[in-house]
Amino acid sequence: MSAAMLSGDDLENALRQIGEERYHHRHPFHHLMRDGKLNRGQVQAWALNRYYYQARIPAKDAYLVARLPTPALRREWRRRIIDHDGESEDTGGIARWLRLTDGLGLDREYVISTKGLLPATRFAVDAYVNFVRDRSLLEAVASCLTEMFSPEIIAERVEGLLKNYDFISRDTLAYFTPRLTQAPTDVAFALAYVKEHADTPEKQALVFDTLRFKCDVLWAQLDALYFAYVEPGLTPPGAFVPGRTAQ
Amino acid sequence: MSAAMLSGDDLENALRQIGEERYHHRHPFHHLMRDGKLNRGQVQAWALNRYYYQARIPAKDAYLVARLPTPALRREWRRRIIDHDGESEDTGGIARWLRLTDGLGLDREYVISTKGLLPATRFAVDAYVNFVRDRSLLEAVASCLTEMFSPEIIAERVEGLLKNYDFISRDTLAYFTPRLTQAPTDVAFALAYVKEHADTPEKQALVFDTLRFKCDVLWAQLDALYFAYVEPGLTPPGAFVPGRTAQ
Repeated sequence: MSAAMLSGDDLENALRQIGEERYHHRHPFHHLMRDGKLNRGQVQAWALNRYYYQARIPAKDAYLVARLPTPALRREWRRRIIDHDGESEDTGGIARWLRLTDGLGLDREYVISTKGLLPATRFAVDAYVNFVRDRSLLEAVASCLTEMFSPEIIAERVEGLLKNYDFISRDTLAYFTPRLTQAPTDVAFALAYVKEHADTPEKQALVFDTLRFKCDVLWAQLDALYFAYVEPGLTPPGAFVPGRTAQ
Repeated sequence: MSAAMLSGDDLENALRQIGEERYHHRHPFHHLMRDGKLNRGQVQAWALNRYYYQARIPAKDAYLVARLPTPALRREWRRRIIDHDGESEDTGGIARWLRLTDGLGLDREYVISTKGLLPATRFAVDAYVNFVRDRSLLEAVASCLTEMFSPEIIAERVEGLLKNYDFISRDTLAYFTPRLTQAPTDVAFALAYVKEHADTPEKQALVFDTLRFKCDVLWAQLDALYFAYVEPGLTPPGAFVPGRTAQ
Protein backbone atom coordinates (compact mmCIF):
# COMPACT_ATOMS: atom_id res chain seq x y z
CA MET A 1 0.00 0.00 0.00
CA SER A 2 1.49 3.29 -1.04
CA ALA A 3 0.63 6.53 0.73
CA ALA A 4 -1.49 9.15 -1.00
CA MET A 5 -0.14 12.57 -1.86
CA LEU A 6 -1.10 15.05 0.86
CA SER A 7 -2.15 18.66 0.31
CA GLY A 8 0.07 21.38 1.79
CA ASP A 9 -2.27 21.79 4.76
CA ASP A 10 -2.47 18.06 5.41
CA LEU A 11 1.30 17.79 5.17
CA GLU A 12 1.65 20.54 7.77
CA ASN A 13 -0.90 18.88 10.03
CA ALA A 14 0.92 15.56 9.77
CA LEU A 15 4.16 17.33 10.73
CA ARG A 16 2.46 18.92 13.73
CA GLN A 17 1.18 15.51 14.74
CA ILE A 18 4.72 14.11 14.70
CA GLY A 19 5.88 17.06 16.79
CA GLU A 20 3.06 16.51 19.25
CA GLU A 21 4.23 12.91 19.74
CA ARG A 22 7.98 13.21 19.49
CA TYR A 23 9.24 16.73 20.18
CA HIS A 24 11.25 17.04 23.39
CA HIS A 25 8.59 19.17 25.10
CA ARG A 26 7.30 15.74 26.18
CA HIS A 27 10.59 14.63 27.70
CA PRO A 28 10.69 14.07 31.48
CA PHE A 29 13.89 16.13 31.75
CA HIS A 30 12.12 19.13 30.24
CA HIS A 31 9.26 18.66 32.68
CA LEU A 32 11.65 18.58 35.63
CA MET A 33 13.27 21.80 34.40
CA ARG A 34 9.98 23.54 33.75
CA ASP A 35 8.56 22.53 37.10
CA GLY A 36 11.54 23.65 39.14
CA LYS A 37 12.57 20.12 40.07
CA LEU A 38 16.18 20.35 38.94
CA ASN A 39 18.99 21.53 41.16
CA ARG A 40 21.62 24.03 40.05
CA GLY A 41 24.10 21.33 39.01
CA GLN A 42 21.53 19.68 36.81
CA VAL A 43 20.66 22.97 35.11
CA GLN A 44 24.39 23.56 34.65
CA ALA A 45 24.76 20.15 33.00
CA TRP A 46 21.88 20.95 30.66
CA ALA A 47 23.31 24.36 29.65
CA LEU A 48 26.82 22.97 29.22
CA ASN A 49 25.67 20.13 26.97
CA ARG A 50 23.22 22.26 25.02
CA TYR A 51 26.08 24.67 24.31
CA TYR A 52 27.49 22.13 21.87
CA TYR A 53 24.23 22.08 19.96
CA GLN A 54 24.24 25.88 19.77
CA ALA A 55 27.89 25.96 18.73
CA ARG A 56 27.33 23.56 15.82
CA ILE A 57 24.19 25.23 14.44
CA PRO A 58 26.13 27.67 12.21
CA ALA A 59 28.12 24.76 10.74
CA LYS A 60 24.88 22.96 9.97
CA ASP A 61 23.47 26.09 8.35
CA ALA A 62 26.64 26.78 6.39
CA TYR A 63 26.51 23.25 4.97
CA LEU A 64 22.98 24.00 3.94
CA VAL A 65 23.98 27.31 2.32
CA ALA A 66 26.72 25.45 0.45
CA ARG A 67 24.12 23.13 -1.03
CA LEU A 68 21.42 25.66 -1.98
CA PRO A 69 21.46 26.34 -5.72
CA THR A 70 20.73 30.07 -6.04
CA PRO A 71 21.90 33.36 -4.51
CA ALA A 72 18.30 34.12 -3.43
CA LEU A 73 17.95 30.86 -1.47
CA ARG A 74 21.42 31.23 0.01
CA ARG A 75 20.70 34.81 1.11
CA GLU A 76 17.58 33.58 2.89
CA TRP A 77 19.41 30.81 4.70
CA ARG A 78 22.62 32.66 5.55
CA ARG A 79 20.57 34.88 7.89
CA ARG A 80 20.58 31.95 10.27
CA ILE A 81 24.37 31.84 10.32
CA ILE A 82 24.43 35.54 11.11
CA ASP A 83 21.77 35.12 13.83
CA HIS A 84 23.93 32.54 15.60
CA ASP A 85 27.45 33.86 14.99
CA GLY A 86 26.45 37.52 15.46
CA GLU A 87 27.74 40.66 13.80
CA SER A 88 30.71 41.03 16.14
CA GLU A 89 32.26 39.60 19.28
CA ASP A 90 29.70 38.93 22.04
CA THR A 91 26.68 39.15 19.76
CA GLY A 92 24.61 36.35 18.25
CA GLY A 93 23.07 33.18 19.60
CA ILE A 94 26.26 31.41 20.67
CA ALA A 95 27.46 34.44 22.64
CA ARG A 96 24.04 34.74 24.27
CA TRP A 97 24.18 31.07 25.25
CA LEU A 98 27.51 31.75 26.95
CA ARG A 99 25.79 34.47 28.99
CA LEU A 100 23.54 31.71 30.28
CA THR A 101 26.43 29.39 31.17
CA ASP A 102 28.25 32.39 32.74
CA GLY A 103 25.14 33.17 34.76
CA LEU A 104 25.02 29.58 35.96
CA GLY A 105 28.58 29.90 37.26
CA LEU A 106 30.26 27.71 34.64
CA ASP A 107 33.76 28.56 33.47
CA ARG A 108 33.47 29.91 29.93
CA GLU A 109 36.67 28.30 28.70
CA TYR A 110 35.58 24.94 30.06
CA VAL A 111 32.20 25.25 28.34
CA ILE A 112 33.76 26.23 24.98
CA SER A 113 36.31 23.42 25.22
CA THR A 114 33.36 20.93 25.25
CA LYS A 115 35.58 18.73 27.43
CA GLY A 116 32.79 18.01 29.87
CA LEU A 117 30.24 17.06 27.24
CA LEU A 118 28.30 13.83 27.50
CA PRO A 119 29.45 11.65 24.59
CA ALA A 120 25.80 11.10 23.63
CA THR A 121 25.38 14.86 23.18
CA ARG A 122 28.28 14.95 20.76
CA PHE A 123 27.02 11.94 18.82
CA ALA A 124 23.50 13.33 18.50
CA VAL A 125 24.58 16.82 17.45
CA ASP A 126 27.20 15.51 15.02
CA ALA A 127 24.59 13.19 13.52
CA TYR A 128 22.45 16.25 12.84
CA VAL A 129 25.26 18.25 11.19
CA ASN A 130 26.27 15.25 9.08
CA PHE A 131 22.66 14.65 8.08
CA VAL A 132 22.41 18.18 6.71
CA ARG A 133 25.75 17.83 4.94
CA ASP A 134 25.06 14.42 3.38
CA ARG A 135 21.34 13.86 2.77
CA SER A 136 19.21 15.28 -0.01
CA LEU A 137 18.58 19.01 0.02
CA LEU A 138 14.90 18.40 0.77
CA GLU A 139 15.82 16.38 3.86
CA ALA A 140 18.42 18.97 4.88
CA VAL A 141 15.84 21.77 4.77
CA ALA A 142 13.16 19.62 6.42
CA SER A 143 15.45 18.84 9.34
CA CYS A 144 14.94 22.35 10.73
CA LEU A 145 11.18 21.93 10.95
CA THR A 146 11.38 21.28 14.69
CA GLU A 147 11.45 25.08 14.86
CA MET A 148 7.69 24.83 14.27
CA PHE A 149 7.47 23.76 17.87
CA SER A 150 10.27 25.72 19.54
CA PRO A 151 8.43 28.92 20.54
CA GLU A 152 6.16 26.88 22.79
CA ILE A 153 8.94 24.98 24.54
CA ILE A 154 11.00 28.16 24.91
CA ALA A 155 8.07 29.95 26.55
CA GLU A 156 7.61 27.05 28.98
CA ARG A 157 11.32 26.82 29.66
CA VAL A 158 11.84 30.53 30.28
CA GLU A 159 8.78 30.81 32.50
CA GLY A 160 9.72 27.71 34.46
CA LEU A 161 13.36 28.71 34.87
CA LEU A 162 12.53 32.25 36.02
CA LYS A 163 9.82 31.19 38.40
CA ASN A 164 11.53 28.24 40.01
CA TYR A 165 15.24 28.94 40.19
CA ASP A 166 16.60 31.88 42.12
CA PHE A 167 20.01 31.45 40.46
CA ILE A 168 18.54 32.37 37.07
CA SER A 169 17.74 35.92 35.97
CA ARG A 170 16.00 37.28 32.90
CA ASP A 171 19.35 38.62 31.68
CA THR A 172 21.00 35.20 31.66
CA LEU A 173 18.09 33.95 29.56
CA ALA A 174 18.74 36.56 26.85
CA TYR A 175 19.34 33.73 24.40
CA PHE A 176 15.71 32.88 24.12
CA THR A 177 14.07 36.25 23.46
CA PRO A 178 15.25 36.72 19.83
CA ARG A 179 14.58 33.05 19.10
CA LEU A 180 10.88 33.68 19.65
CA THR A 181 10.84 35.86 16.53
CA GLN A 182 13.70 34.24 14.57
CA ALA A 183 12.33 30.70 14.70
CA PRO A 184 8.93 31.52 13.16
CA THR A 185 10.58 33.47 10.30
CA ASP A 186 12.98 30.60 9.68
CA VAL A 187 10.32 27.95 9.79
CA ALA A 188 7.93 29.79 7.47
CA PHE A 189 10.57 29.61 4.75
CA ALA A 190 11.46 25.98 5.42
CA LEU A 191 7.84 24.88 5.57
CA ALA A 192 7.04 26.62 2.27
CA TYR A 193 10.12 25.02 0.71
CA VAL A 194 9.12 21.58 1.93
CA LYS A 195 5.52 21.97 0.75
CA GLU A 196 6.75 22.96 -2.69
CA HIS A 197 9.51 20.37 -3.11
CA ALA A 198 8.00 17.30 -1.44
CA ASP A 199 5.94 16.74 -4.57
CA THR A 200 5.52 12.97 -4.41
CA PRO A 201 4.20 10.72 -1.62
CA GLU A 202 7.71 9.24 -1.37
CA LYS A 203 9.26 12.67 -0.77
CA GLN A 204 6.56 13.53 1.75
CA ALA A 205 7.38 10.30 3.59
CA LEU A 206 11.04 11.35 3.54
CA VAL A 207 10.08 14.66 5.16
CA PHE A 208 8.20 12.84 7.93
CA ASP A 209 11.18 10.55 8.51
CA THR A 210 13.40 13.60 8.68
CA LEU A 211 11.28 15.29 11.31
CA ARG A 212 11.27 12.08 13.35
CA PHE A 213 15.05 11.91 13.02
CA LYS A 214 15.42 15.50 14.19
CA CYS A 215 13.09 14.90 17.13
CA ASP A 216 15.31 11.93 18.00
CA VAL A 217 18.36 14.20 17.94
CA LEU A 218 16.77 16.51 20.51
CA TRP A 219 15.25 13.70 22.58
CA ALA A 220 18.50 11.74 22.80
CA GLN A 221 20.21 14.76 24.33
CA LEU A 222 17.68 14.92 27.16
CA ASP A 223 17.84 11.13 27.63
CA ALA A 224 21.59 11.42 28.14
CA LEU A 225 21.16 14.26 30.64
CA TYR A 226 18.49 12.34 32.55
CA PHE A 227 20.61 9.19 32.64
CA ALA A 228 23.78 10.98 33.78
CA TYR A 229 22.37 13.60 36.14
CA VAL A 230 18.91 12.48 37.33
CA GLU A 231 18.41 8.75 37.33
CA PRO A 232 20.28 6.48 37.62
CA GLY A 233 22.77 9.36 37.72
CA LEU A 234 25.63 7.43 36.13
CA THR A 235 27.92 10.12 34.76
CA PRO A 236 30.24 8.81 32.03
CA PRO A 237 34.03 9.08 32.58
CA GLY A 238 35.30 12.55 31.78
CA ALA A 239 31.89 14.22 31.73
CA PHE A 240 31.01 17.28 33.78
CA VAL A 241 30.36 16.60 37.45
CA PRO A 242 28.49 19.43 39.22
CA GLY A 243 30.56 20.96 41.98
CA ARG A 244 33.53 18.75 41.22
CA THR A 245 34.81 19.26 37.66
CA ALA A 246 37.05 22.30 37.23
CA GLN A 247 34.53 24.93 36.24
CA MET B 1 65.82 14.75 2.46
CA SER B 2 63.17 16.62 4.39
CA ALA B 3 62.45 20.29 3.75
CA ALA B 4 63.34 22.90 6.34
CA MET B 5 60.72 24.98 8.11
CA LEU B 6 60.35 28.34 6.37
CA SER B 7 59.79 31.70 8.06
CA GLY B 8 56.53 33.51 7.32
CA ASP B 9 58.25 35.76 4.79
CA ASP B 10 59.98 32.87 3.06
CA LEU B 11 56.72 30.96 2.93
CA GLU B 12 55.06 33.95 1.28
CA ASN B 13 57.91 34.31 -1.19
CA ALA B 14 57.71 30.64 -2.09
CA LEU B 15 53.95 31.05 -2.67
CA ARG B 16 54.61 34.05 -4.93
CA GLN B 17 57.14 32.00 -6.84
CA ILE B 18 54.56 29.28 -7.47
CA GLY B 19 52.10 31.94 -8.65
CA GLU B 20 54.71 33.41 -10.95
CA GLU B 21 55.16 30.02 -12.59
CA ARG B 22 51.67 28.58 -12.55
CA TYR B 23 48.98 31.26 -12.20
CA HIS B 24 46.82 31.64 -15.29
CA HIS B 25 48.18 35.10 -16.09
CA ARG B 26 50.74 33.08 -18.07
CA HIS B 27 48.16 31.19 -20.08
CA PRO B 28 48.04 31.83 -23.86
CA PHE B 29 44.26 32.29 -23.71
CA HIS B 30 44.67 35.14 -21.23
CA HIS B 31 47.29 36.71 -23.49
CA LEU B 32 44.95 36.52 -26.47
CA MET B 33 42.21 38.20 -24.45
CA ARG B 34 44.47 40.88 -23.05
CA ASP B 35 45.96 41.66 -26.45
CA GLY B 36 42.63 41.97 -28.26
CA LYS B 37 43.17 38.80 -30.30
CA LEU B 38 39.87 37.12 -29.41
CA ASN B 39 36.67 37.59 -31.36
CA ARG B 40 33.33 38.25 -29.72
CA GLY B 41 32.32 34.58 -29.75
CA GLN B 42 35.51 33.60 -27.97
CA VAL B 43 35.00 36.25 -25.31
CA GLN B 44 31.40 35.03 -24.95
CA ALA B 45 32.66 31.46 -24.47
CA TRP B 46 35.06 32.67 -21.79
CA ALA B 47 32.39 34.64 -19.89
CA LEU B 48 29.85 31.81 -20.16
CA ASN B 49 32.26 29.22 -18.81
CA ARG B 50 33.68 31.47 -16.15
CA TYR B 51 30.12 32.08 -14.93
CA TYR B 52 30.10 28.57 -13.50
CA TYR B 53 33.20 29.33 -11.45
CA GLN B 54 31.57 32.51 -10.12
CA ALA B 55 28.32 30.70 -9.36
CA ARG B 56 30.05 28.00 -7.29
CA ILE B 57 32.25 30.34 -5.25
CA PRO B 58 29.62 30.90 -2.52
CA ALA B 59 29.17 27.13 -2.17
CA LYS B 60 32.92 26.75 -1.75
CA ASP B 61 32.96 29.53 0.85
CA ALA B 62 29.94 28.14 2.70
CA TYR B 63 31.68 24.76 2.98
CA LEU B 64 34.62 26.61 4.44
CA VAL B 65 32.42 28.49 6.90
CA ALA B 66 30.87 25.16 7.91
CA ARG B 67 34.31 23.87 8.80
CA LEU B 68 35.72 26.87 10.67
CA PRO B 69 35.67 26.29 14.42
CA THR B 70 34.76 29.68 15.93
CA PRO B 71 32.18 32.45 15.40
CA ALA B 72 35.02 34.97 14.84
CA LEU B 73 36.59 32.93 12.03
CA ARG B 74 33.21 32.22 10.48
CA ARG B 75 32.24 35.91 10.59
CA GLU B 76 35.44 36.75 8.74
CA TRP B 77 34.86 34.16 6.04
CA ARG B 78 31.12 34.62 5.59
CA ARG B 79 31.83 38.10 4.19
CA ARG B 80 32.92 36.34 1.01
CA ILE B 81 29.55 34.62 0.67
CA ILE B 82 27.85 37.99 1.06
CA ASP B 83 30.24 39.59 -1.48
CA HIS B 84 29.27 37.03 -4.09
CA ASP B 85 25.59 36.46 -3.36
CA GLY B 86 24.88 40.13 -2.64
CA GLU B 87 22.51 41.76 -0.19
CA SER B 88 19.49 41.51 -2.50
CA GLU B 89 18.50 40.58 -6.04
CA ASP B 90 20.90 41.96 -8.67
CA THR B 91 23.69 42.74 -6.23
CA GLY B 92 26.85 40.79 -5.51
CA GLY B 93 29.52 39.18 -7.65
CA ILE B 94 27.32 36.63 -9.42
CA ALA B 95 24.80 39.29 -10.46
CA ARG B 96 27.64 41.51 -11.66
CA TRP B 97 29.03 38.64 -13.73
CA LEU B 98 25.63 38.31 -15.38
CA ARG B 99 25.87 41.98 -16.35
CA LEU B 100 28.99 40.98 -18.25
CA THR B 101 27.32 38.05 -20.03
CA ASP B 102 24.29 40.30 -20.72
CA GLY B 103 26.60 42.93 -22.19
CA LEU B 104 28.17 40.29 -24.40
CA GLY B 105 24.73 39.43 -25.80
CA LEU B 106 24.34 36.05 -24.11
CA ASP B 107 20.91 34.92 -23.01
CA ARG B 108 20.83 35.10 -19.22
CA GLU B 109 18.72 32.00 -18.77
CA TYR B 110 21.05 30.02 -21.01
CA VAL B 111 24.07 31.19 -19.01
CA ILE B 112 22.48 30.33 -15.66
CA SER B 113 21.38 26.92 -16.93
CA THR B 114 25.10 26.08 -17.51
CA LYS B 115 23.89 23.93 -20.40
CA GLY B 116 26.54 25.26 -22.76
CA LEU B 117 29.42 24.72 -20.34
CA LEU B 118 32.55 22.90 -21.42
CA PRO B 119 32.66 19.65 -19.41
CA ALA B 120 36.24 20.45 -18.41
CA THR B 121 35.04 23.69 -16.80
CA ARG B 122 32.54 21.79 -14.69
CA PHE B 123 35.10 19.17 -13.68
CA ALA B 124 37.70 21.75 -12.68
CA VAL B 125 35.30 23.93 -10.70
CA ASP B 126 33.67 20.97 -8.98
CA ALA B 127 37.12 19.66 -8.09
CA TYR B 128 37.79 22.96 -6.35
CA VAL B 129 34.52 22.96 -4.38
CA ASN B 130 35.03 19.33 -3.36
CA PHE B 131 38.61 20.05 -2.33
CA VAL B 132 37.42 22.75 0.07
CA ARG B 133 34.69 20.47 1.40
CA ASP B 134 36.87 17.39 1.88
CA ARG B 135 40.49 18.32 2.57
CA SER B 136 42.02 19.58 5.80
CA LEU B 137 40.99 23.04 6.95
CA LEU B 138 44.50 24.32 6.31
CA GLU B 139 44.33 23.16 2.69
CA ALA B 140 40.81 24.56 2.33
CA VAL B 141 41.95 28.00 3.48
CA ALA B 142 45.17 27.84 1.45
CA SER B 143 43.23 27.09 -1.72
CA CYS B 144 42.10 30.70 -1.93
CA LEU B 145 45.66 32.03 -1.99
CA THR B 146 45.49 32.54 -5.75
CA GLU B 147 43.79 35.80 -4.77
CA MET B 148 47.30 37.00 -3.98
CA PHE B 149 47.73 37.30 -7.74
CA SER B 150 44.26 38.28 -8.92
CA PRO B 151 44.46 42.09 -8.75
CA GLU B 152 47.23 42.00 -11.34
CA ILE B 153 45.42 39.74 -13.79
CA ILE B 154 42.17 41.68 -13.31
CA ALA B 155 43.95 44.95 -14.12
CA GLU B 156 45.44 43.42 -17.28
CA ARG B 157 42.14 41.86 -18.26
CA VAL B 158 40.05 44.99 -17.74
CA GLU B 159 42.53 47.20 -19.55
CA GLY B 160 42.87 44.75 -22.45
CA LEU B 161 39.13 44.19 -22.77
CA LEU B 162 38.28 47.90 -22.72
CA LYS B 163 41.03 48.90 -25.12
CA ASN B 164 40.62 46.15 -27.68
CA TYR B 165 36.97 45.20 -27.88
CA ASP B 166 34.34 47.73 -28.95
CA PHE B 167 31.57 45.39 -27.72
CA ILE B 168 32.75 45.75 -24.12
CA SER B 169 32.01 48.79 -21.92
CA ARG B 170 33.20 49.75 -18.47
CA ASP B 171 29.70 49.07 -17.17
CA THR B 172 29.70 45.44 -18.32
CA LEU B 173 33.00 45.00 -16.48
CA ALA B 174 31.46 46.11 -13.17
CA TYR B 175 32.30 42.70 -11.74
CA PHE B 176 35.95 43.44 -11.47
CA THR B 177 36.04 46.79 -9.68
CA PRO B 178 35.01 45.59 -6.18
CA ARG B 179 37.23 42.53 -6.57
CA LEU B 180 40.27 44.82 -6.62
CA THR B 181 39.57 45.74 -3.00
CA GLN B 182 37.84 42.53 -1.85
CA ALA B 183 40.58 40.15 -2.95
CA PRO B 184 43.42 41.83 -0.99
CA THR B 185 41.27 41.90 2.19
CA ASP B 186 40.40 38.24 1.73
CA VAL B 187 43.93 37.16 1.00
CA ALA B 188 45.45 39.04 3.94
CA PHE B 189 43.35 36.94 6.26
CA ALA B 190 44.04 33.67 4.46
CA LEU B 191 47.76 34.32 4.25
CA ALA B 192 47.97 35.14 7.96
CA TYR B 193 45.99 31.98 8.74
CA VAL B 194 48.28 29.85 6.62
CA LYS B 195 51.43 31.37 8.12
CA GLU B 196 50.12 30.62 11.59
CA HIS B 197 48.79 27.11 11.00
CA ALA B 198 51.35 25.67 8.58
CA ASP B 199 53.65 25.10 11.52
CA THR B 200 55.65 22.13 10.26
CA PRO B 201 57.61 21.62 7.02
CA GLU B 202 55.06 18.96 6.06
CA LYS B 203 52.16 21.38 6.44
CA GLN B 204 54.04 24.04 4.51
CA ALA B 205 54.54 21.51 1.71
CA LEU B 206 50.81 20.83 1.82
CA VAL B 207 50.16 24.55 1.36
CA PHE B 208 52.44 24.65 -1.69
CA ASP B 209 50.68 21.61 -3.16
CA THR B 210 47.36 23.31 -2.54
CA LEU B 211 48.37 26.46 -4.37
CA ARG B 212 49.61 24.34 -7.29
CA PHE B 213 46.30 22.48 -7.30
CA LYS B 214 44.35 25.74 -7.35
CA CYS B 215 46.51 27.13 -10.15
CA ASP B 216 45.72 23.91 -12.05
CA VAL B 217 41.99 24.53 -11.51
CA LEU B 218 42.27 27.95 -13.14
CA TRP B 219 44.71 26.85 -15.84
CA ALA B 220 42.60 23.85 -16.89
CA GLN B 221 39.65 26.16 -17.54
CA LEU B 222 41.67 28.24 -20.00
CA ASP B 223 43.11 25.09 -21.62
CA ALA B 224 39.58 23.90 -22.28
CA LEU B 225 38.57 27.27 -23.76
CA TYR B 226 41.68 27.35 -25.95
CA PHE B 227 41.11 23.80 -27.17
CA ALA B 228 37.41 24.33 -27.93
CA TYR B 229 37.40 27.87 -29.27
CA VAL B 230 40.91 28.76 -30.49
CA GLU B 231 42.96 25.81 -31.59
CA PRO B 232 42.22 23.15 -32.70
CA GLY B 233 38.75 24.57 -32.09
CA LEU B 234 37.11 21.24 -31.39
CA THR B 235 33.98 22.15 -29.44
CA PRO B 236 32.65 19.19 -27.40
CA PRO B 237 29.10 17.97 -28.13
CA GLY B 238 26.49 20.15 -26.41
CA ALA B 239 28.85 22.99 -25.60
CA PHE B 240 28.18 26.61 -26.54
CA VAL B 241 28.82 27.42 -30.19
CA PRO B 242 29.17 31.17 -30.85
CA GLY B 243 26.45 32.44 -33.18
CA ARG B 244 24.77 29.07 -33.34
CA THR B 245 23.65 27.88 -29.91
CA ALA B 246 20.37 29.40 -28.75
CA GLN B 247 21.63 32.35 -26.76
